[in-house]
Amino acid sequence: MFTDEYFMKLALQEAQEAFEKDEIPVGCIVVCKDRIVAKSHNLTETLNDVTAHAEMQAITSAANFLGGKYLIDCTLYVTLEPCVMCAGALNWSQISRVVIGARDEQRGFINKNLALHPKNEIATGILENECSAILKEFFLNKR
Amino acid sequence: MFTDEYFMKLALQEAQEAFEKDEIPVGCIVVCKDRIVAKSHNLTETLNDVTAHAEMQAITSAANFLGGKYLIDCTLYVTLEPCVMCAGALNWSQISRVVIGARDEQRGFINKNLALHPKNEIATGILENECSAILKEFFLNKR
Repeated sequence: MFTDEYFMKLALQEAQEAFEKDEIPVGCIVVCKDRIVAKSHNLTETLNDVTAHAEMQAITSAANFLGGKYLIDCTLYVTLEPCVMCAGALNWSQISRVVIGARDEQRGFINKNLALHPKNEIATGILENECSAILKEFFLNKR
Repeated sequence: MFTDEYFMKLALQEAQEAFEKDEIPVGCIVVCKDRIVAKSHNLTETLNDVTAHAEMQAITSAANFLGGKYLIDCTLYVTLEPCVMCAGALNWSQISRVVIGARDEQRGFINKNLALHPKNEIATGILENECSAILKEFFLNKR
């Protein structure tokens, strides 16, 4: 039951919540030993804060829940490839695994040749089409 | 009166506050048209949060004070070269100018060849010795 697809679907539900608030629809879930320890979605417009990406909130929230600042044994599921800021934060968090839905060739960290923490394992392409579709729909509505 | 050295001295006072809380002593000031709109210091241990770097808090706080998420016409003074996470956040903020005290060859963004926002002007070496000295003293005490 607790597959990557299962958790990415929950991250997509978070992205949908962002969409409904007219936020760029990116959602995030942090899982620690099959238990969800944080859920978040992009709130940059609502909070008027460029740092309020889904991942940043999820890292803070998961650390708060777990009572320690390092996210060892945790997996972060995010519907869009993290940007440089969020990749830097994931690096500091020493999170075990990062699972990515849609790629972000332009603003994502992967094409920037940033070395993440050796402890960060990266997986891409989980529910990629669904994760892309919600973003495309959002930006199509904006035109 | 309102020179880079003047504002960096205030950032150093913030670093001193971090030092007294047993936090890695990094301090930050954001100035908009000669007015201080945010002050902060590293709080990663106190808040148990790897994202609580001085710069991240200053960006959120300045945006909150100014009522808009972009820090156009602002200068951020920071006693230590920003890491990849903070550089990513400064990029998103479109801040006009970033003034750096001590360099961080290993963890700082400059050696990572990260292109910041074209609007981000960078200056280094302001009160570099004082900004380095407080960090050296902190880590010497830790041995």
